[in-house]
Amino acid sequence: MRQYRVGLIRVLTTDDEELLQCHGRLIQQYFPMLEVQSRCIADQPEGIHDDETLALGAPKVVAMAKKMWEEGFEAIIVSCAGDPGVAEARKVVPIPVIGAGESTAALCLFYGSRPAVLGITADVPAGYQRIFGDKIVDNARGKGVESVLDLMTPEGFAATEAEVLRQKELGADVIALSCTGMSTIQIAPALEEKSGIPVLDPVMSEGLVTLFELLRREAQQEQS
Amino acid sequence: MRQYRVGLIRVLTTDDEELLQCHGRLIQQYFPMLEVQSRCIADQPEGIHDDETLALGAPKVVAMAKKMWEEGFEAIIVSCAGDPGVAEARKVVPIPVIGAGESTAALCLFYGSRPAVLGITADVPAGYQRIFGDKIVDNARGKGVESVLDLMTPEGFAATEAEVLRQKELGADVIALSCTGMSTIQIAPALEEKSGIPVLDPVMSEGLVTLFELLRREAQQEQS
Repeated sequence: MRQYRVGLIRVLTTDDEELLQCHGRLIQQYFPMLEVQSRCIADQPEGIHDDETLALGAPKVVAMAKKMWEEGFEAIIVSCAGDPGVAEARKVVPIPVIGAGESTAALCLFYGSRPAVLGITADVPAGYQRIFGDKIVDNARGKGVESVLDLMTPEGFAATEAEVLRQKELGADVIALSCTGMSTIQIAPALEEKSGIPVLDPVMSEGLVTLFELLRREAQQEQS
Repeated sequence: MRQYRVGLIRVLTTDDEELLQCHGRLIQQYFPMLEVQSRCIADQPEGIHDDETLALGAPKVVAMAKKMWEEGFEAIIVSCAGDPGVAEARKVVPIPVIGAGESTAALCLFYGSRPAVLGITADVPAGYQRIFGDKIVDNARGKGVESVLDLMTPEGFAATEAEVLRQKELGADVIALSCTGMSTIQIAPALEEKSGIPVLDPVMSEGLVTLFELLRREAQQEQS
């Protein structure tokens, strides 16, 4: 089986190796043909979560994508639902650059036409907005949930479950999770079981689209 | 590596084993974890290409999906861009049923926001219409192209290339191929090279979404 070397960028600064590698490990487990190496951007221990941290972080993502391309990686995953620096990085490197946000949103439309967005932020990330447009039924986070840590408490988990049920009640036929930290804690299957409608996991989605991009490139190269 | 048993339904009656197995072979080559067995519906040597042949063929697809599920297949691919019988089959079997049309259209929105549809029919298939809505820039087939056979002639191929360039000119930023016969002849990479915009292959797309569905099911089962 052909193996592809994929670089994964975490937009959260950490020296916790377990946390750093988590998304990459999940992707390798789902897609054994992807060999993922993860790195994180510097000096953003709270990640990218608003306009200020985005402005600060996006150029770091672009620089890291460039470096990883120079080192021979065949695709770059920006493992964040906000797709920070993704559009800019595509202008700089000739390999695929895949963000979690656009990947999750696009796949949602296979499942339904009335998507709801569920995460930990007040705003709908740009990729979801572009792809869903006015189809969005709702955007929410669990009451009191402002970080992934909050999701891990029984209260935060219950509050998030309550939002999914409310979104289904509003007519949502598919849920787009809008934070890759929700993949870290593997909340999608639990929310799907609770609600009975598809709940899409951002890390699984970004991995899938990365595989697609690599297969498309290969078909392209065989052709020319 | 976990292997999944996938049943693939061709909506074109044929006793040409090469033709029958073609889509399944492509999918196995792209996704080695999918073990695909192909079958075709009976008495439709010209396939499904209009309302009448759809009305005739859809119940055959549903019956075949049911039979394949009973035989232990874990997912069913309906390898046709018109997604014939897909919605109905989902009501009958408890395993994923994936059509080429919805798969291709959903993935297109990762790449762009102004999709054009290119195939061999005058109408936009239902799945593309549902997912693209009023984002569709154009729907076309090459001049004189009415079947996959026409695509294989130099004239038909050139006419199809001309349409892609016209669609790009109209502002399309991604092309959704709307006939799985276009995968049989592997036309997507050639059209992508010619136009410089992504051209999505329906068989690669249906295979990818099938893998996603199977991974999602597995995550779901591990959870409960």
